[in-house]
Amino acid sequence: MALTLTEKILGSHLVSGELKSGTEIAIRIDQTLTQDSTGTMAYLQLEAIDIPRVKTKLSVAYIDHNTLQCGYENADDHRYIETVAAKHGIVFSKPGNGICHQVNLERFGRPGWTLLGSDSHTPTAGGLGMLAIGAGGLDVAVAMAGGAYYLRMPSICKVELRGQLPPWTSAKDIILELLRRLTVKGGVGRIFEYSGPGLAQLSVPDRATITNMGAELGATTSIFPSDEQTRTFLASQGRDDAWVSLTADDNARYDEEVIINLNDLEPLLAKPHSPDNVVPVRELSGIALDQVLIGSCTNSSYSDLLKVAKILEGKSVHPNISLAISPGSKQVLAMLARDGALAAMIQAGARILECACGPCIGMGQAPRSGGISLRTFNRNFEGRSGTPNAQIYLTSPEVAAASALTGVLTDPRELGNPPAVNTAVSVIADNSLLLLPPENGSDIEIIRGPNIKPFPRADKLPPALCGEILLKPGDNITTDHIMPSHAHLLPYRSNIPYLSNYCFHSLDPNFPERAIMRRGGFIVAGNNYGQGSSREHAALAPLYLGIKGVIAKSFARIHRANLINFGIVPFTFNDISDYAALELGTEIIIENIQEQILAGDSIKATYGEAKRTLSLKVDLTSREQSILLAGGLLNHTRERGE
Amino acid sequence: MALTLTEKILGSHLVSGELKSGTEIAIRIDQTLTQDSTGTMAYLQLEAIDIPRVKTKLSVAYIDHNTLQCGYENADDHRYIETVAAKHGIVFSKPGNGICHQVNLERFGRPGWTLLGSDSHTPTAGGLGMLAIGAGGLDVAVAMAGGAYYLRMPSICKVELRGQLPPWTSAKDIILELLRRLTVKGGVGRIFEYSGPGLAQLSVPDRATITNMGAELGATTSIFPSDEQTRTFLASQGRDDAWVSLTADDNARYDEEVIINLNDLEPLLAKPHSPDNVVPVRELSGIALDQVLIGSCTNSSYSDLLKVAKILEGKSVHPNISLAISPGSKQVLAMLARDGALAAMIQAGARILECACGPCIGMGQAPRSGGISLRTFNRNFEGRSGTPNAQIYLTSPEVAAASALTGVLTDPRELGNPPAVNTAVSVIADNSLLLLPPENGSDIEIIRGPNIKPFPRADKLPPALCGEILLKPGDNITTDHIMPSHAHLLPYRSNIPYLSNYCFHSLDPNFPERAIMRRGGFIVAGNNYGQGSSREHAALAPLYLGIKGVIAKSFARIHRANLINFGIVPFTFNDISDYAALELGTEIIIENIQEQILAGDSIKATYGEAKRTLSLKVDLTSREQSILLAGGLLNHTRERGE
Repeated sequence: MALTLTEKILGSHLVSGELKSGTEIAIRIDQTLTQDSTGTMAYLQLEAIDIPRVKTKLSVAYIDHNTLQCGYENADDHRYIETVAAKHGIVFSKPGNGICHQVNLERFGRPGWTLLGSDSHTPTAGGLGMLAIGAGGLDVAVAMAGGAYYLRMPSICKVELRGQLPPWTSAKDIILELLRRLTVKGGVGRIFEYSGPGLAQLSVPDRATITNMGAELGATTSIFPSDEQTRTFLASQGRDDAWVSLTADDNARYDEEVIINLNDLEPLLAKPHSPDNVVPVRELSGIALDQVLIGSCTNSSYSDLLKVAKILEGKSVHPNISLAISPGSKQVLAMLARDGALAAMIQAGARILECACGPCIGMGQAPRSGGISLRTFNRNFEGRSGTPNAQIYLTSPEVAAASALTGVLTDPRELGNPPAVNTAVSVIADNSLLLLPPENGSDIEIIRGPNIKPFPRADKLPPALCGEILLKPGDNITTDHIMPSHAHLLPYRSNIPYLSNYCFHSLDPNFPERAIMRRGGFIVAGNNYGQGSSREHAALAPLYLGIKGVIAKSFARIHRANLINFGIVPFTFNDISDYAALELGTEIIIENIQEQILAGDSIKATYGEAKRTLSLKVDLTSREQSILLAGGLLNHTRERGE
Repeated sequence: MALTLTEKILGSHLVSGELKSGTEIAIRIDQTLTQDSTGTMAYLQLEAIDIPRVKTKLSVAYIDHNTLQCGYENADDHRYIETVAAKHGIVFSKPGNGICHQVNLERFGRPGWTLLGSDSHTPTAGGLGMLAIGAGGLDVAVAMAGGAYYLRMPSICKVELRGQLPPWTSAKDIILELLRRLTVKGGVGRIFEYSGPGLAQLSVPDRATITNMGAELGATTSIFPSDEQTRTFLASQGRDDAWVSLTADDNARYDEEVIINLNDLEPLLAKPHSPDNVVPVRELSGIALDQVLIGSCTNSSYSDLLKVAKILEGKSVHPNISLAISPGSKQVLAMLARDGALAAMIQAGARILECACGPCIGMGQAPRSGGISLRTFNRNFEGRSGTPNAQIYLTSPEVAAASALTGVLTDPRELGNPPAVNTAVSVIADNSLLLLPPENGSDIEIIRGPNIKPFPRADKLPPALCGEILLKPGDNITTDHIMPSHAHLLPYRSNIPYLSNYCFHSLDPNFPERAIMRRGGFIVAGNNYGQGSSREHAALAPLYLGIKGVIAKSFARIHRANLINFGIVPFTFNDISDYAALELGTEIIIENIQEQILAGDSIKATYGEAKRTLSLKVDLTSREQSILLAGGLLNHTRERGE
């Protein structure tokens, strides 16, 4: 039978189930990655699972989020992760080595392998032909312990690229076009598989820009074939041996197909406050900007930044603009420094930031109040920049660099021909900021700072769930809404009790206090609840505050898994019109919840003083049922000895 | 009459008084500088003085402290300063352009001129033969408005440098040696004037390292002659016209003399938690380090960092070490990038931070709990790093770079011969991140963010001062104790009401609440009260909390001036033994304070329930008397139309 690329990789890693869309499958995980903002929790959970050494082929712990280190908390987390990594056989990537996804492409990613990462942009590695999925830290911990990763088999959508990118357009415009067409919900339950004659012109870093921002579509992952471009990239990294040819069979059957004619693309951008709010740059050109930021795991490769350097070379950043550039990795920075590109950026007036996620995750460079900021990043959720009323636009490095020179949003086609860029240079493939674990880590002492607190554990599911509706936000609630992530809170990612004080802060600062006073309850939400990051803190903080269930029109994939992993029931509506009837403060009672979940039918609940009937769904696999009843994946894993 | 260099410059700028040690003089100020953490307050005060355009020859507003921008507050402050600068004829140095003192040396400093800066390290410019003094923001605002700067004529101490620096020692060891001999109180009321045959080997950046850290001696300022080294430096910057020859007369009379034989120096460092806690590096060599930081206004010149690059070149930072380097200015960074030095640092594994004060002012790179950090900075006060129990050591770039490679404190003489360093390269003298004000700024709208609050104003001195002793700390209380300065508080430098909640936080977190409950009162302190920074927030926060007077054994110069400027009376003891009798909570009553201050004799007070007699001093010039009675300098300036 002719297979898709996805089916080939999933098939070769299948532990249970069959590759039938919508059914549960379990796959073997070859590699894992964590970053520091989700990593401390993942490793605390790995410690709770209690195995001496990871069972993956490779596990890497990166430090890339909290590198500002405004207090001891970050450096303590770094040291904790460094020691726990050494003890358990995990490679440690020191702060300064770069963003996990960029370093993974450069040094570790392998076509045909599986990668599970506690970061929602883990699918970046799909640019290299890897099947790479973002998940909560607990799922990653279970994978490190040798457990399979369970997911519903997604439908597979072919994205056929035809034609040639016009001058001044690039990979970012391809993914922005897809977001324009499909929206941030368009990828839910899907894997995007790229193909077509347009592929050949896209380098691995280009492809990684596209697979990276597949996360914004809500996709399970995105993947490119492993071809000559892949071979060239791996060879440049001195990793020829990692290459295999890997493509879909000619007659492979896809669930859906999308065609993008690259010739039709033009420079695009996403307007505030959603990555799918996409329009051509020309429609808004001339808007005055305050700030331009270039970098993030979406657009911080050598080729991205070399293009930027060539546009800036010999010119000066506009007086009204603060331009800051954060290269993706030490390798990228070292090459830019060697090749004169860094000197060109500096002389043009760019502020050079550390190789890290930086302002993309709200760590620094918050714009002024009401400021307008143009960024090459992947998310522009309201407030994520650190400035609640800032206006964030997402675009390509080309548009960003051109606009930094003019001070206003600029369609770079106005600048004439794009500068020539030679990316076929030797790579500085240096591993000196990667610390390899010792053969035997049993003697290593794990160092814990005072900010690292035990994480909350769920109890077994009680006979009945009762409680008030404590919050009723609308559609597209992001993990940034649930558990804000910015410079003031990221240092507390190891401290759920503290972090919980800020749960839903932008929507209702009184939510945490109300939840505790009411001894927990329910959240009622609209569509695509929990979109955005993989952070399980968006489940752990509600768990700490006593949340028993979330009733939503629909859920984002990773967040739904995180809720189940921590014993919070993710309900949907049988009759969507019930949504309107549920009001803040209404009491919901769900009797016999255990039996109802196991029965797998509609869940009968009552609400309000009149005890009106409410019909809910919890569409669970039998494994998910067991996890929820056990009070979460950790309890379940220990019960089963999985 | 033969004159010292200091007397020549003071004499040519004298507005009133005579150059007699201990008497009040007033001098004309040629240039001013501000940075962003003291600048917002200085410019709010300039606005209150209400002049259309500054009357100095040059005033420059730098952004160098709050460049992390973890929230909108920083960028709002930057925009406020940018607009207020343009309106009032002040040059604006954009974030990313570098540390005020380094940029001032490069682009603006002039031998023989006077400079007043709202930063305690303003004396850095003394390395260029400039008479440069740090002061509170209000003094700087008055100077911008054309007012004279008043000070007690300091005694003048000659520091004669003889011999040649041995290999691996440098300017930092000269100033550490002086701190070792004289302590942090050794410079109070003094100006250090450097001379002798040892001068010729010291470049302007070397000299600036020494004058910079003269601030740690408590000195009013430090100054070097303007000679061939000065001419070479200015010529390299394309500023030949700024050079004049300026030296002390041969037979000039000094109040004191210190001789340093450079041949006797060896690599030194200051142990926690004071810059005068100096010992040879060899005595502590082998101590395991967590972190090495290179930069700050003390050691971030091109020549400093080129030396570092040469030591690191072709090697790798030790796995246990996090090495971060923050270049002093865009010029330095651009030159390092051009010359391959930046590439060498990056390849060795250094984390490259922005051109800014950065971790020296607690903005980032806080060490882990209990971490040991070696820094080329100027201050190692407890907690200033952002980590309360970190151990901070201060040393030269040579020692820092050598130790980053070994992972332990290392006397670089163990490494053999120092690498050859060629600093005679062309300078990249680019002003593109400096915004010049328009000829007429009257139409410019000043943009104020929501975090910029009005500053508190003192009332006229009341007939009597009564209140409890609200705090009794010991000796050497720093401005970091009084008004902490770190990444969490620096963004609030424009918001005294918020900041006041943290006044004396490390000594007694209940102090602000107690002060407000008791409606203000007194602080009783030991020697050298208020050492450290020029921040007038250390007077404004106590003013906001109702502090009426500080009774100390002695005061640091700038802080004493700030107290007077904001109407808080700086008392000392007539009988030092009374210090012991004054206890926390004791009530102090000072009747007829106005008359007593004007009489200029001892101040009679009573304390405790028994109303025991207490004899105090307030050693004031008649101008200072008027300022205190008026309720501070701003009231005084407006009353006089000065």
